[in-house]
Amino acid sequence: MNATPDIIIQEVCPRDGLQIEPVIVSTQRKVALIDRLSAFGFRRIEAGSFVSPKAVPALADGEAVFRSIVRRKTVVFVALVPNLRGAERALAAGADELNFVMSASVTHNRANMGMDHEGSLSALAEAAAATAGRIPVNATLATAFGCPFEGEQDEGKVLRLIEAYLCFGARSITLADTTGMANPKLVRQRVKSVLGLVPREALTLHFHNTRGLGLVNVMAAFDAGALRFDASLGGLGGCPFAPGASGNVCTEDLVNLCEEIGLNTGLDLAGLIALSRELPSIVGHPGPGQVVKAGRSCELHPAPLRITLTD
Amino acid sequence: MNATPDIIIQEVCPRDGLQIEPVIVSTQRKVALIDRLSAFGFRRIEAGSFVSPKAVPALADGEAVFRSIVRRKTVVFVALVPNLRGAERALAAGADELNFVMSASVTHNRANMGMDHEGSLSALAEAAAATAGRIPVNATLATAFGCPFEGEQDEGKVLRLIEAYLCFGARSITLADTTGMANPKLVRQRVKSVLGLVPREALTLHFHNTRGLGLVNVMAAFDAGALRFDASLGGLGGCPFAPGASGNVCTEDLVNLCEEIGLNTGLDLAGLIALSRELPSIVGHPGPGQVVKAGRSCELHPAPLRITLTD
Repeated sequence: MNATPDIIIQEVCPRDGLQIEPVIVSTQRKVALIDRLSAFGFRRIEAGSFVSPKAVPALADGEAVFRSIVRRKTVVFVALVPNLRGAERALAAGADELNFVMSASVTHNRANMGMDHEGSLSALAEAAAATAGRIPVNATLATAFGCPFEGEQDEGKVLRLIEAYLCFGARSITLADTTGMANPKLVRQRVKSVLGLVPREALTLHFHNTRGLGLVNVMAAFDAGALRFDASLGGLGGCPFAPGASGNVCTEDLVNLCEEIGLNTGLDLAGLIALSRELPSIVGHPGPGQVVKAGRSCELHPAPLRITLTD
Repeated sequence: MNATPDIIIQEVCPRDGLQIEPVIVSTQRKVALIDRLSAFGFRRIEAGSFVSPKAVPALADGEAVFRSIVRRKTVVFVALVPNLRGAERALAAGADELNFVMSASVTHNRANMGMDHEGSLSALAEAAAATAGRIPVNATLATAFGCPFEGEQDEGKVLRLIEAYLCFGARSITLADTTGMANPKLVRQRVKSVLGLVPREALTLHFHNTRGLGLVNVMAAFDAGALRFDASLGGLGGCPFAPGASGNVCTEDLVNLCEEIGLNTGLDLAGLIALSRELPSIVGHPGPGQVVKAGRSCELHPAPLRITLTD
């Protein structure tokens, strides 16, 4: 588990996964979840957010979460922040890194953040200044592969916004496929273009499996040179425009895929599967992950005397 | 819809999809389903099987189905047959092509077909002889990417069995990932090797999405030169060893992926999605398909005044 990973998976279930759940998970359970996740070998965990408790009541306890989790030197605990106020709260709570969000689509940004790009970039600059360089700031470009209101997003605009991100204080970038509109052809093109602006160590891809393409897009991005990927235990985290559809790329499904093709993730797949199987007791329903249901390919079954004709 | 397709998708829902359903769908409904499917542009539909009604009661009405469906010159209606008796029934019912099945894993073949490879190959030879060359025979190699009882399947054995298939009368080959054990690395290797024995027009890949890798494996096989793929409307069809897991690659999800990356399928995606949304009224439950829930990426939504923070 200690070799340099071939692919870096950032666990986002405690933030992006729980954010959309109708049940509010207690601080104690969130902390227990994060503590168990951080024992599985993750280098990065998005542990909570510091947004308005009115906007996201499920994550109103960011301070308590960050103050209670067991810190490990090997794990960067990331906090999502929308503005200066959020950055100040996250810094006070001891976050290791800030993650800022703005949408490539201005329509989505207005709906999601209540402001235009100029306002968001000012907020990023303020948040970055507040860190005084003590911790890094990652900036996520949401709807980077398509917006449910505007549709396709022009690559030139995406690249300009990333340049603005870097200019306004972001040290690394996440391209987020907020509502699962990416496809492998677009992903390959966009990753190659963005890698002209940031090194692969500073680029994260965040895919949703809304239309079943989450893992296809991860593979396309990896082939195009990307190294870092967000994923959520159990595939938790959804999209408000696709009720019933899958959410984030499922961590254990992605880790299983990587292991099957010989990519070292540095993660404990058996532990992840076991923990994912406990998610229904935390959020009240099973997630869309597949490996929790099917088990790994290496888990063989006893041969029956006779089964139904199958192919 | 008339240009030569870049990828050929064979619809297998009427056979592989319905085979495992606990409800027995009436002949009338099967015929209506196939007639609607054949209007969507498929060149190949696996319409039924001629196995023992005791083994697969859900498909005991193969004769009635083949005699009642509307024939189109553009569509090859395939019948699954396990032996000479099945071949004779399928020929009498007017099938356009026979599909024979044997497992690469002898343990699986004994459990599934009740015989060793020698017995299966003799059965293939008898079935092929019964056609007297009037219709072609496809031969499916089940568990070609792994067996739930034996585990990995040696490539040399797979290639020898395919050579035997061709020798015993098969004109085309399907490699089936019966219980979703394939991964893109293995798929690429195996497709390249098998394309040394059969031309791409004579090779079909049949993937199950048991561990979430169905579309990843389709893309890997296509990249390696494969052209023909099985898929099932709604993703119906499962695996008895992974209760609750996804079944076959979902037709409309695969067609959506192809359209998003600019591959012509020759199929009516809107029609497929509409028909898939009717499946719960036929089989009593929704399938695991994603696009039926999320809609296509091009279906935009009105922008709300303010939504929850998402990325």
